[in-house]
Amino acid sequence: MPQKLTTMQRPVPSDLAISQSAQTLPIVSIAEEAGLYADELEVYGMHKAKVRLSARDRLVDAPNGHYVVITAITPTPLGEGKTTTTVGLSQAIGAHLGKKVFTCIRQPSQGPTFGIKGGAAGGGYSQIIPMEEFNLHLTGDIHAITAANNLLAAAIDARVHHESYQSDAKLFERLCPADSKGKRSFSPVMLRRLAKLGITVTDPDALTEDEISRFVRLDIDPQRITWRRVLDTNDRYLRGITIGRGANEKFERETGFDITVASEIMAILALARDAADMRDRFGRMVVAASRNGTPVTADDLGVSGALAVLMKDAIMPNLMQTLEGTPAFVHAGPFANIAHGNSSIVADEIALKLVGSDGYVLTESGFGADIGMEKFFDIKCRTSGLVPDCVVLVATIRALKMHGGGPKVVAGSSLAREYTAENLDLLEAGAVNLRKHVENAASFGVPVVVAVNRFPTDTDAEVELVRRLAQEAGALDAVTSDHWANGGAGAVDLGRAVIAACEQPSDFRYLYPLEMTIKEKIETIAKRMYGAAGVEYSSEAEEQIDRYTRSGFDRLPICMAKTHLSLSHDPDLKGAPTGFIVPVREVRASVGAGFLYPLLGTMSTMPGLPTRPAFYDVDLDPETGRVVGLF
Amino acid sequence: MPQKLTTMQRPVPSDLAISQSAQTLPIVSIAEEAGLYADELEVYGMHKAKVRLSARDRLVDAPNGHYVVITAITPTPLGEGKTTTTVGLSQAIGAHLGKKVFTCIRQPSQGPTFGIKGGAAGGGYSQIIPMEEFNLHLTGDIHAITAANNLLAAAIDARVHHESYQSDAKLFERLCPADSKGKRSFSPVMLRRLAKLGITVTDPDALTEDEISRFVRLDIDPQRITWRRVLDTNDRYLRGITIGRGANEKFERETGFDITVASEIMAILALARDAADMRDRFGRMVVAASRNGTPVTADDLGVSGALAVLMKDAIMPNLMQTLEGTPAFVHAGPFANIAHGNSSIVADEIALKLVGSDGYVLTESGFGADIGMEKFFDIKCRTSGLVPDCVVLVATIRALKMHGGGPKVVAGSSLAREYTAENLDLLEAGAVNLRKHVENAASFGVPVVVAVNRFPTDTDAEVELVRRLAQEAGALDAVTSDHWANGGAGAVDLGRAVIAACEQPSDFRYLYPLEMTIKEKIETIAKRMYGAAGVEYSSEAEEQIDRYTRSGFDRLPICMAKTHLSLSHDPDLKGAPTGFIVPVREVRASVGAGFLYPLLGTMSTMPGLPTRPAFYDVDLDPETGRVVGLF
Repeated sequence: MPQKLTTMQRPVPSDLAISQSAQTLPIVSIAEEAGLYADELEVYGMHKAKVRLSARDRLVDAPNGHYVVITAITPTPLGEGKTTTTVGLSQAIGAHLGKKVFTCIRQPSQGPTFGIKGGAAGGGYSQIIPMEEFNLHLTGDIHAITAANNLLAAAIDARVHHESYQSDAKLFERLCPADSKGKRSFSPVMLRRLAKLGITVTDPDALTEDEISRFVRLDIDPQRITWRRVLDTNDRYLRGITIGRGANEKFERETGFDITVASEIMAILALARDAADMRDRFGRMVVAASRNGTPVTADDLGVSGALAVLMKDAIMPNLMQTLEGTPAFVHAGPFANIAHGNSSIVADEIALKLVGSDGYVLTESGFGADIGMEKFFDIKCRTSGLVPDCVVLVATIRALKMHGGGPKVVAGSSLAREYTAENLDLLEAGAVNLRKHVENAASFGVPVVVAVNRFPTDTDAEVELVRRLAQEAGALDAVTSDHWANGGAGAVDLGRAVIAACEQPSDFRYLYPLEMTIKEKIETIAKRMYGAAGVEYSSEAEEQIDRYTRSGFDRLPICMAKTHLSLSHDPDLKGAPTGFIVPVREVRASVGAGFLYPLLGTMSTMPGLPTRPAFYDVDLDPETGRVVGLF
Repeated sequence: MPQKLTTMQRPVPSDLAISQSAQTLPIVSIAEEAGLYADELEVYGMHKAKVRLSARDRLVDAPNGHYVVITAITPTPLGEGKTTTTVGLSQAIGAHLGKKVFTCIRQPSQGPTFGIKGGAAGGGYSQIIPMEEFNLHLTGDIHAITAANNLLAAAIDARVHHESYQSDAKLFERLCPADSKGKRSFSPVMLRRLAKLGITVTDPDALTEDEISRFVRLDIDPQRITWRRVLDTNDRYLRGITIGRGANEKFERETGFDITVASEIMAILALARDAADMRDRFGRMVVAASRNGTPVTADDLGVSGALAVLMKDAIMPNLMQTLEGTPAFVHAGPFANIAHGNSSIVADEIALKLVGSDGYVLTESGFGADIGMEKFFDIKCRTSGLVPDCVVLVATIRALKMHGGGPKVVAGSSLAREYTAENLDLLEAGAVNLRKHVENAASFGVPVVVAVNRFPTDTDAEVELVRRLAQEAGALDAVTSDHWANGGAGAVDLGRAVIAACEQPSDFRYLYPLEMTIKEKIETIAKRMYGAAGVEYSSEAEEQIDRYTRSGFDRLPICMAKTHLSLSHDPDLKGAPTGFIVPVREVRASVGAGFLYPLLGTMSTMPGLPTRPAFYDVDLDPETGRVVGLF
C-alpha cells in the first residue's frame, strides 16, 4: 500500500531537501506492489529499475486502466506546475483514494539542470524521488541517445570521406571483403540497402558493375546532410560549427550540435512499440540527400543495427516512485517543439496493464494543450491505438492574469503586484485562453477537468471565478489543488473529479485523418487548435511539401514546431488571439519517428548557459557526500 | 567457489558466442563470494554492480593481498593478448588454484567497438562477461565523463561570451545577485576562487572595486583555451572544428573533440582516492589562460562541484565476473598515451582488501611495459602508496619475430609466413625487445614472470627458446599459457609461477624521485626505460618547462606521451634500439590528474572510422533480441 515517505514541514523546504529527507522505499517493493515480477526488472541501484517489455506481453489479455493526459493552458515562461500536478494527482489517487495508479512522465534533459532551469521532478510535496537521480543520469537512456546519434553522424562524414578517394571497385572490396576462402558476403544490414535499390541478388559476386556502383556509392552531398550531432549540455557555441578542419580531412562543412533530447532517436524511443520496431524506424531515418537528391537513410549507411544495440536497454521504461510511494515511469523526453513532447508509448502501455480496469495512468504531455496535448492525441495515441479517458488541464491564476493583459513575466525577475494581489478583471479577461484550451480538448471527444494549481497568494474569489469560467467553457469539472504544499492530500478533490470524469463516456476522435494532404492537415491544426485565419508557406516550404508528397511522406501526421508561449506562432500574442496568419517557414521530415514538422518560427534546438549558471550552487557535501544545490 | 560457466567447444567460437552461452552467475553471488556486504553494492541489472567505497573503509585494517601488474613487450598493431592473459590468469588462480583473486581492468572506449577494433573484454575462454555489457555502456561511467567534460567546455565559452559585453559591476550583479532581502552571498565554489586570489572577505558587499574586478573577470584568452570537448565516438571530422559560427555569438575559435577516454576527467577518476579528492582535483584542472597568462581552473569557472556531482556514481568500481566466476573490477580507462593508461586506484584498493593476505589482485596496465608499467609504478603506485609484488610480462612469438626483423604486421591483412611457421633465428633476434622489458621491470625491484601467450602455430622449440632467453634476461620464470583456448586451465602453470614470484621479496623503488627537475625526470625515463642516448626539446617545450617550473608544477611526475609500437619515439624502430635522441615537441600539464605529459610525437586523440566500420555487423537478433556481431 502506498504511503507517505516524508513528514511535511513549514515553510516548505527546497525540492532537494524534501527529496533527501524522504524514506524512499526499495524499488523492488514499489515494483512488487505494482504487480511486476522480479524477472521483469533490471534494478539500477536501490531506487531505480528498468522494466522489461515482457511484462506487457505477460499481461496482453489484461484490461487496460483509465488513461488520463495532463496538459496545461498557455504557460508563462515560469511554467504552471504540470509535472507537479501530475505527481500530486497520482499521490492523491494512489495514496489517498485507494486506487491503483501510475505516473508516466518524461525524463528531463540534463543540460538545463545545470543551466537556468533546475530540476524537473515535480516540486514541493509532489515529487518523483530521489530527485537528484531523476535529474541526473537516471539509467543512462539520454546518454545512449547521445552515443547513437553521434555514431550515426560520424558514420555519415566518414562515408563521404572514404567515398571521396576510392573507386567503386575499391569501395566494394572494402565493404564486402573476401574471406580466407575467397568468399564475399553481405551483412544483413546491407541486404536492406539492396532491397531498397531493387537488387534481389544476395551473392556479392553476382552483382553487375552498375549494381556495385549503386550499392557502394551513397554519393552524399555534404551540403545536404541534415543529421546534426547532439550533446546533453547547454552549449550555445556548438549551435553553428565548421567541421573537418583537421589536417588530414577531405572536406569541410557547416553543421552544429543540438541538445540530445531534440534527436530523432529520442522521438523514436518515445513512439516505438518494441526493440524491433525501434530498429526499423532507426533504419528509415533520412539523414542526408545524395547529389542527385535521393534520400540517404541510416540503413544505407549500415549503422541502424548498431544504433538499436546502443538503445536496447533504453527502450525499457524506468521505474521510480513518488514521495508517497506510488509508482512512476520516467521514460523518453522528446523536445515538445520539433518533436512530439510526450513520454513513451511503452511506459503507458505497461502501466495501463499493471493498474488494470479499476486503475489510472496519468501521463503528461509537454508545453500547453495546443502543442503537447494535440500531439498526444494525433501522434502518440494514433501510433499506439490507445484511447484516452480524460484530459486534466492545469491552469494558474498567474498565467490567466498574464493572458488578460498583465505585465510581462520574466524568469529570474520578481513578479509584478498584479500577480500577487487579487485582480478579478485581469483574470476574467485572461480566461479566454483557458476557454480556448477547454474547447480544444473537448473537441477530441474526451472529458476535461480543469486543475487550478493554487499558489499561496491566490484568493478564494479568484479561484472561484476560474472554476466558474472553466465550467462555462465546457469543462466537466474545475477543481483547486494545492499538492505542492500538501502532497496527495492537497489533490484529493482533483483526484475525485478525475475518477468521476473517467466514468463519463469518451468519444475520442483525432483532429484530422492521415489521408488529408499535408497542407490540409497543417491548416486544420492551425485553424481549429490555434484560432488562425489561415496559413502561408515560404517557397522553401512549398517545395518541401511537394517533395514529401511525391516521396509518399504525405500520409504522416503533422508535428507543429511552434512557440509554447502563445496559442499562435507569435509569443507576444497572449489570451486567445484570432485572425492571424500562421507562417510556415520550412517543413522537415522525421521519417523514422513518423511525422513531418513544419517550423512556424525559429526554434532553438540548443540552449545556452546564463552568466551565472545553476551549476554554481551544485556540489557534493564534503561531510555527507550528498548532492547539494540542485533545485 | 568460482566455477566454470561454459562448456568448451572446438574450434573456439567467437567471443560473443562464448559469452552469450555462459551461465552467468548473479552479480550479487559474485559479490557475496568476494566478501562484499549487500549494502556496499549498487546493483545494475543482473550482471553488473557498483561497489561503494565504504567497503574499503570497513576493511581499512585488513591486510592487503598480493599486487600483480600485467604488462607486455612492445606489441604489434594486433596486440599481444594482455587483457586475455590477465583474465585467464585470474581464472587459473581463482578457479583452479583455490586462491582468492580479483581482476582489475580498464573500461574500454565504446568508440573503437564500432570502429575497427571490436570488443576488449579478453577473448576466447578468458573473458569478462557479459561481453556486450562490458563493451557497451557498462554502468555509464564514460558517459558521465562525457557529460562532465563538456559541461566544463560549455562553461568556458559561455563565460567568455558573457564577459565580452558586460561591465565588472554587471557581472558581479549577475554572479552574486541580491536576494529578496537585498543580501548577496558567495556560493562555496566562489570562495575557492577568492582564496586563490588572496581575497579573504566572505561578504560580497565588502569587496573593493578592484577585488570585484579580479573576482568576476576571468579574462580568458579564446586563443589559449586548452580544454577540448569529448565524445565516446570515433569521429575524425571533429578533430579540428571552428565553433561559435551561430548567428548570435560573440566570437569564433578553433578547437576540436577528443575521444572521451582522453579527457583529464578520466585520468582523475583513475587516480582519485575518493569523491572529495576527485572534486578537489577537478577544481585544479587548468583549462585556459587569461590574456595576462594566468592559468584558469575549473574552480575559477564555478563548475567543479557540478562536475563532482556528475561523477559521484562513476567513482564506484564496477563489479563483473570472468567466464569462470571469479570477480573482476572494470573501472576507468584513461588513454595509455596522453594519460597514464591504468585502471583505477580505488578498484585496486578495494580488491586488495577483499582478497586478503593470501589473495591476488591482477591489474593490467596499458600498452607495453615502457609505457603502461612505467606509469603504473611512477604515477599510479606513487599516488596510491601501494607496493607491487610481481610483474607479469606478456610476450608472443609473433611480436618477437617482428622485433627480430619479420615483415610488417598490419591489422586486417593476413600474417606473413614468418609468423605462422617456425623461425628460430627471427625469434632469437627479436628477443632483445623482451630482454629490455625484463630488465626495465626488474629495475623497479619487483620480480618478473614472463607469460608466453601461445598461439596454435607456435612450435615447442620456439616456446622453449623464449623461455630460456627470458630467464637469461633476468625473469624469475617464463611460462607458456594457452588460456585463450583453454581458459583458466590453460594458465595454471603461469598461475603457479606468479604465486611463487609473489613469495619473493619485493624491493620496490620508483624510477625517479619527484624532486628531480622536469628535464631530469624526462631524461631518466628516456635513457633508462627507452634506451635513448639523449633528449632534445623544442623551443616551445623549453618555454613550457620553464613556465611549469615557475608555477611549481615541476614536482609532478612525468607521463610520457609516445608511440606504443617501439621502445623509442619512432614506431619503425623495432627490437631494442639505442643511440636515438628523443624529441620533446611539447609539454602539457594535467594539473588535476597530477602529471606533466611531454609529447614525443603527434598523438591522435580522436580515432576515425574505416570504410567498413565494425558496426556493419552489429545488430539485434530479431528472434531472440540478443546482440549479434560484436567481436
